[in-house]
Amino acid sequence: MSDSQVLEKLSQLLGSKGFTSDPDDLAPWTTDWRGRYHGQAAALLSPATTAEVSEIIKIANAHQLTLVPQGGNSGMVAGATPDESGASCLISLRRMNRIEMVDATSRQVRCEAGVVLQNLHEAVAAQGLRFPLTLGGKGSATVGGLISTNAGGTQVLRHGTMRSLVAGVEAVLPDGSIYNGLVPLKKDNRGYDLKHLLIGAEGTIGIVTRATLQLVPALLDRAVAWVSVDTPQDAYALLLAATNALDSALEGFEILPDVALQHVIKHIPGTRRPVESEKGWHVLIELVRDSDDQVAPTSLAENFLGEMLEAGLAKDAVIAASETQAEAFWKIRDSIAEAERAEGPALQHDISVPVSAMARFIETESPQIEARYPGTMVVAFGHLGDGNIHYHVKAPKGATAEEWYARFAQAISADVYDRVTAYGGSISAEHGIGQAKLVEFERLSDPARLNALRAIKLALDPNGIMNPGKLVPLASKPAAA
Amino acid sequence: MSDSQVLEKLSQLLGSKGFTSDPDDLAPWTTDWRGRYHGQAAALLSPATTAEVSEIIKIANAHQLTLVPQGGNSGMVAGATPDESGASCLISLRRMNRIEMVDATSRQVRCEAGVVLQNLHEAVAAQGLRFPLTLGGKGSATVGGLISTNAGGTQVLRHGTMRSLVAGVEAVLPDGSIYNGLVPLKKDNRGYDLKHLLIGAEGTIGIVTRATLQLVPALLDRAVAWVSVDTPQDAYALLLAATNALDSALEGFEILPDVALQHVIKHIPGTRRPVESEKGWHVLIELVRDSDDQVAPTSLAENFLGEMLEAGLAKDAVIAASETQAEAFWKIRDSIAEAERAEGPALQHDISVPVSAMARFIETESPQIEARYPGTMVVAFGHLGDGNIHYHVKAPKGATAEEWYARFAQAISADVYDRVTAYGGSISAEHGIGQAKLVEFERLSDPARLNALRAIKLALDPNGIMNPGKLVPLASKPAAA
Repeated sequence: MSDSQVLEKLSQLLGSKGFTSDPDDLAPWTTDWRGRYHGQAAALLSPATTAEVSEIIKIANAHQLTLVPQGGNSGMVAGATPDESGASCLISLRRMNRIEMVDATSRQVRCEAGVVLQNLHEAVAAQGLRFPLTLGGKGSATVGGLISTNAGGTQVLRHGTMRSLVAGVEAVLPDGSIYNGLVPLKKDNRGYDLKHLLIGAEGTIGIVTRATLQLVPALLDRAVAWVSVDTPQDAYALLLAATNALDSALEGFEILPDVALQHVIKHIPGTRRPVESEKGWHVLIELVRDSDDQVAPTSLAENFLGEMLEAGLAKDAVIAASETQAEAFWKIRDSIAEAERAEGPALQHDISVPVSAMARFIETESPQIEARYPGTMVVAFGHLGDGNIHYHVKAPKGATAEEWYARFAQAISADVYDRVTAYGGSISAEHGIGQAKLVEFERLSDPARLNALRAIKLALDPNGIMNPGKLVPLASKPAAA
Repeated sequence: MSDSQVLEKLSQLLGSKGFTSDPDDLAPWTTDWRGRYHGQAAALLSPATTAEVSEIIKIANAHQLTLVPQGGNSGMVAGATPDESGASCLISLRRMNRIEMVDATSRQVRCEAGVVLQNLHEAVAAQGLRFPLTLGGKGSATVGGLISTNAGGTQVLRHGTMRSLVAGVEAVLPDGSIYNGLVPLKKDNRGYDLKHLLIGAEGTIGIVTRATLQLVPALLDRAVAWVSVDTPQDAYALLLAATNALDSALEGFEILPDVALQHVIKHIPGTRRPVESEKGWHVLIELVRDSDDQVAPTSLAENFLGEMLEAGLAKDAVIAASETQAEAFWKIRDSIAEAERAEGPALQHDISVPVSAMARFIETESPQIEARYPGTMVVAFGHLGDGNIHYHVKAPKGATAEEWYARFAQAISADVYDRVTAYGGSISAEHGIGQAKLVEFERLSDPARLNALRAIKLALDPNGIMNPGKLVPLASKPAAA
């Protein structure tokens, strides 16, 4: 069967709502959202049911058609962008967007993988519940994409990554068979855990079609505090104190250097400095309560910060006096990436080391990076409570972006990743590998891990039809002569 | 190289402390602890380091020598018992029993896989910490065995199974390469999660050699309550009320029918009835506190049980007045299996369904089982809070064990498992598959799951040297002519 006959077959299967090869329809989905990777696709497939997904994959497998699953297309590593050959089909589950069941008793929701995160939030909020994971792309990110990338965000400290919130999954495997693991079992020791294997697999060994997700009670109230400290090590000491004193009330603990705050205030309209202090580091702390018999977060925060100020660990601290002010604090945190883009070119790294080592990493490695590449500045910010920092290395003032990237990008990023690896850390804490980090992943991974990943990929997807060129660095192919 | 030459090579590698083929040395380890499976082994290998484990596996892989990893030999499904051929070597990590580091700040312990659970408990207790997983075999069960079987127990409700407590693992894969995932990263999205793949893999795709485990603060105090209710559904209603009212203080919620209590009192010296009521069902509840600013568990329990008695859901309730009495309550729960063995032959099933469905399962299916096999009695007890029950079907009074097993075992167990499967449940909630459940697992698994498991096993262990005949039902081989 020729390629066009295969597409014709898919077109017949899916109908006009589920199939398009019109270049105008495809255009928005063949570039990653940061605009750095551009691909081509033969068609966009939008199945309406798990059975249709299964049929698509059977056809693809029979005819060696490669499929690129795409959720909200808001990933950071181009994991959902097809290559330039134009031979692949995009497959999107946007039509599979039903929320099938919200169970207030077991606090679970079952839904199709195409449900957009924000819609999920709203649907469960209507039942007095909360799905405790959120991120910037919530208006487009889908449940299937969040699972397949094991998404993180700013609530991981208390609730874990997506992995902790998935109670069950249904997925279509690369041979078209349907794995039904939707029923939420708290205990199940029947062999290798396929749920955990599919989470974070970036669509390379199957497509998640439905999921059962864990919910928590809706928030009654929260306290959001802005705290200034001298150094990352002081921020870590504050984290330990907060973990001991506030325990399960502590939901967020984000760190940023003052320079990041300066950039936000400079570039993002309507933002202003929460505290006087203009040096050192800042920490954003969120305390929550979801049950009447817990202490009010504001009193918790007042007591805790009073002690920290008295002990000299906190140099300055303010608790948001209203929900509006709380949102203003969070807006600063959520605007850092945008402000940094406006401030000038930078190389971004999403890295993790053990929580206990991150402050040391920042204090030790950043000056060395800056010294080695004169004029650069490190801006490290993010989820200190998870040992996960977004580590930006900014170009020298006045540098031309393209020229600087061409000269330094590879060397600087390799240097950062070498240092992370020396700490036993991860070169991708929450963004995944996709295609953007494939080369560095292969360079730095220990061979045991790499070989195991390759073996699993080849075993489950022997024809290589599922999201080729992503996540797993297969053995390099010889370059064309 | 002949078989004896391979053994000689291993003997030279490991020395007299690490190698024995003396039948007397081997005898205790070639039968599972329930005495139902008997095997033979060519030797017992006891490496002292990860490097030695790696060397053993390389030799085994090169010469197609099969290896059967064994922890404390206290498993329930004969997953660590070799087959009868005598061709396999047992490999035990009992010499790798170092506790390398207890970190009070991050609340983590790093240790070798041969550490016995009870020793781990004691070592971390000395630092004011607690490893919140325990089970009957704690005096022999090892960390490696607990990880490889994803062990459960009576604290899963609050702390999860072993899977939730493993922060990092080191393992030797079937090609002898060493996977180093020991560093505890809270976020790491570098491909398929090998840690989760190894947990519960029963040593079929590698041997866990070291681990980093999560700890919690030591308990300050606890309240243990005995509550009588009319039915499993009432016990479930009590569980929901407890979850809402007691939240993170609730650590244990175990259920048993009055008949199980009767059997314990009859067969286990020194036990007595905690409450007057002699009918219906009983629930054992444990509430804990590990921080000064939490409410004392006894007040929590008094308030909660007062409300439940008033509401008529609890028919009777008593809170242990002392630690001695608390232990007496737990002794009843922990003695059920022994009392049931003394009472007469029974078929045991370790099953799970969604938590919300377990009471219904017991109330609906047990009478049908009893009616279908006249004279039998179902005794269902255990972890209601996890949706996991040990489901015993007892032989009719006066039945001869062997005769009854021979006639009914297969049919009754298949019937139980069919019903569990109809509820979307698991035929092995916490005990694993081993060799004991392999046939039923193959019969009842959906093909997608089975094929994926087979593909993974064959990909990672192409020579089939790691714990053959366990966990993964490979395609049946033709019988010898």
